[in-house]
Parts: sequence; C-alpha cells; structure tokens
Amino acid sequence: MIKIVLIGAGNVASHLYKAFGKTAVAEVIQVFSQHAESLSEYKEEVETTTSLSKLKPADLYLVAVKDDAITQVITEISKPARFIVHTSGSVAMPNVSGKNGVFYPLQTFSKNVDVDFSNIPICLEASEEKSLELLQELANSISEKVFSISTEQRKSLHLAAVFVSNFSNHLYALAAEFCEANQVPFETLHALMLETTRKAVENNPNEVQTGPAIRHDQETIQKHLGQLKDPQLKEIYSILTKSIQAHGKKL
Amino acid sequence: MIKIVLIGAGNVASHLYKAFGKTAVAEVIQVFSQHAESLSEYKEEVETTTSLSKLKPADLYLVAVKDDAITQVITEISKPARFIVHTSGSVAMPNVSGKNGVFYPLQTFSKNVDVDFSNIPICLEASEEKSLELLQELANSISEKVFSISTEQRKSLHLAAVFVSNFSNHLYALAAEFCEANQVPFETLHALMLETTRKAVENNPNEVQTGPAIRHDQETIQKHLGQLKDPQLKEIYSILTKSIQAHGKKL
Repeated sequence: MIKIVLIGAGNVASHLYKAFGKTAVAEVIQVFSQHAESLSEYKEEVETTTSLSKLKPADLYLVAVKDDAITQVITEISKPARFIVHTSGSVAMPNVSGKNGVFYPLQTFSKNVDVDFSNIPICLEASEEKSLELLQELANSISEKVFSISTEQRKSLHLAAVFVSNFSNHLYALAAEFCEANQVPFETLHALMLETTRKAVENNPNEVQTGPAIRHDQETIQKHLGQLKDPQLKEIYSILTKSIQAHGKKL
Repeated sequence: MIKIVLIGAGNVASHLYKAFGKTAVAEVIQVFSQHAESLSEYKEEVETTTSLSKLKPADLYLVAVKDDAITQVITEISKPARFIVHTSGSVAMPNVSGKNGVFYPLQTFSKNVDVDFSNIPICLEASEEKSLELLQELANSISEKVFSISTEQRKSLHLAAVFVSNFSNHLYALAAEFCEANQVPFETLHALMLETTRKAVENNPNEVQTGPAIRHDQETIQKHLGQLKDPQLKEIYSILTKSIQAHGKKL
C-alpha cells in the first residue's frame, strides 16, 4: 500500500483523492491545505492539517497546488528521505534533496464534475528508476494510459494542451457570445462541436479540415468578415483563415 | 409521401439520401449529378440523371451542391410549379419563380462516417407558410431538432459554426503538428479534447475557461511563447491569449 500525503485541496487534488479512494494500491493518509475551510469535506475521512511542518511520514508527497506556489511548497517540505512529486504540466521537476518526480494527469478538471480516471493520460517523470516504478504502480492503479516522458516532452504536451483545450474553449465562448448578440441559440451548435472533436480524435485533424478557408472560398470569407463588427473577432477570423490556408498549401 | 428529387451526390446529399431512406414520410425518386461516376452507388436503388433538363416531377427539389454552384443550378431548374430548396448555411434563400426555401443541416459530414440524424439540427426557411409546413414535416421525420429561422439568423449560425468547427479543428491540427515536431504522441491529448468540448456543451463556455491566459499567469505565457518557433503559431497564441484576457475582464 502506497501511503500518500496530499498537499492541496483544489480541483486536481480532490479528483486525485477520489481516484485513490477507489484503488487498493494506495491510501491517502493526510491532506494539507493552508485554508482550513478547504479541508472540511475531508475531515471525516482522513487526517488533515493546515501546517506544512506537521506532515506525516509517507511513501509519497503529492503536491497539487497552483503552479506558482509549487516551488515554495516543495522547498519547504523537502527532506532527504522524502519522495516529492508535483502534478503540473509546465513546472520543472522538483530538484531538491531526496527523490523527486512529476505525476501529471492531462485533463481539465471541474470542481463538481466526476471524471473517469481510467481514460485520463498520466504523464510521469522521476529522478530515479525505483521512484518511477512506484509512480507507475500508482498511476496504473487509476488509469489505463500511463506515459513516462521527459521534462521537454511534458512541456510540449502542456503547450499543445493550451491549443486544444483553452483556445478551443475560447472559440466556443466567442461563438456563444456572437450567437447571443445575433439572437440564435448557441445550443444549435452543440452537435457540430461534439462531432468536430470526435472526428479530429478519430482522424488526423489536418486531413479533415473543412470550411470556407480550406476551400479558398473568398466570397464567403468576405461575407463573414463583413458580419463581424468586433475588431478582435475580425482579427482572429483573419489570422486563423490565413493559417488554415498556409497549412493547406503545405500538405 | 413527399417525393424528392435530390440534386447533388456529395457528402451532404449522400447523408440526406440515407436519412430519407429510413423514413416513411419521404422518398427520393431521382438523384442528379453532373458526374456519372458519382451516381454509380445510387443506380441500383433509384433513378439517376446527369441532365438538369430531365428532372422528374416532384414535391421538392433539394439542391445539395457546392455553395458557388447553387445559384446557377437553381436558376437552371426553376419553374413556376417547382418547390426548390438548398442545403447551404451561407447562401441566400433562392429567389426564383415558384416556391423557395432552405433545408440546412448544421453538421460536418464526412464521406464514409455514418451520422445519427436525429441529433442534427435542421434549420428551415421558406418563402411561404405552406412550403414551410412541408419542410417541417420532412425535417421532423429525420431529426428531433428542427428550427425555423430567418436568413440573418442562418448566416449568423454559419459564421459561428466556422469558429466552433473549422477553427477549433485547425487548433487541433496545429497541436498535432506541434506534437509531432516535439516527439510526443498527439493521442495523449484526445481525452482532453473530448472533455473540453463536453464541458463547453454542458456549461456556458465563458464560465469554464481555464489555462494560463485566464489566470494571467504571465510566467507560463512567456515560457510558451519561447517554445513556439513558428511566427504564425506565436501570433495565434498571442492573439487568443489577449482575447481570453479581454473577455475575462468583461465578464
């Protein structure tokens, strides 16, 4: 049984806590948060603390706090015997005394939406082979998609994730606003959104590109630019259209 | 039984043909294409023709050809007694003698991928009430999501569709290229893509925006810009980041 001290009580931490609760391989023995109120939902099930100096002995210290707090927390809890990992896609692997690693679940987590961890890729990194094996055992117990990758690869994935998740969500948001302003229900686009993503997952997205840009349908493109009043929307439309056309030529 | 002459044998036409084949409300009695070879798959099931002057009498002439060919085809087949509709999101409603309309299925169609039409929104427009009723009967027989909308609303939807479908697919394509160049498997992002879209469909996408842009995490943004070598990718990253931040402020 891998004994885990979970540092953090936010989205990632709470989803990991639930996932570990379902496996016999691991047990969360303590949860830390600097905010006592964040610990209320854990209190009846597990030991909690608001003090980093009161962490229990454990096989793994899993730091799932905001990116900009990671280094400080890790420095503070570091001890030669401790195995410390964080869950971030963009922060370098901890480099403190003892064993270090990364346990990065590549998914977008929402507070109250349960997720099926078995489908979530978990990207691992560790400072030594033995530590990697422990992380693999832990990751395999909750997910079917476990990858050992380098720091560089993880940073590339994190950047690619911004494009496919944060940026595509923003396009949805812009479309939703545009629909509202033009009195059409955004819901009408839901089936299209889901099918577009399904298609990009089942094919090479470069090969299933559709729309006026890739058809070089200049008439429709001009009509669309005329419909867009917001200069920033116009700019986004233009630059993505140009990029689609540049890639179409390259292929 | 609504007798339909289908003009066109491309993606939209072939998917509509299959959908109409499953309903007792309508029957496709003839399929036109100017390319004989496109008709080969229809020939054993239905009358076909490569001549617009040989169309049979029917209740509805459904023009599912490329946007830039629609007007010419409609002008050529127009007769006072004919009810002619097209299936485009961006072309104005036909304005020829007789009855006119639009039958716009809002979805991205791929040649060999079957679709469940019951979930596909169909947007209708017609020059007269009686014609609209016929289109409604037809649309309701294959889809549970039928909308009567104005030309302006249809054009807005079509533009919004470019953002949520063509542009988001292009972001997927850029991410796939970036992954390949940096030797990480794009498949690692599949679960994230599907979950992001599911979340945007079940929530207001403005309210579930995540990532370094909305967190104003300048350190990560600068790291990402440093990782991007292609100037066009850098520009897309910058403009979408700015747009996310501008919207975050407005909300």
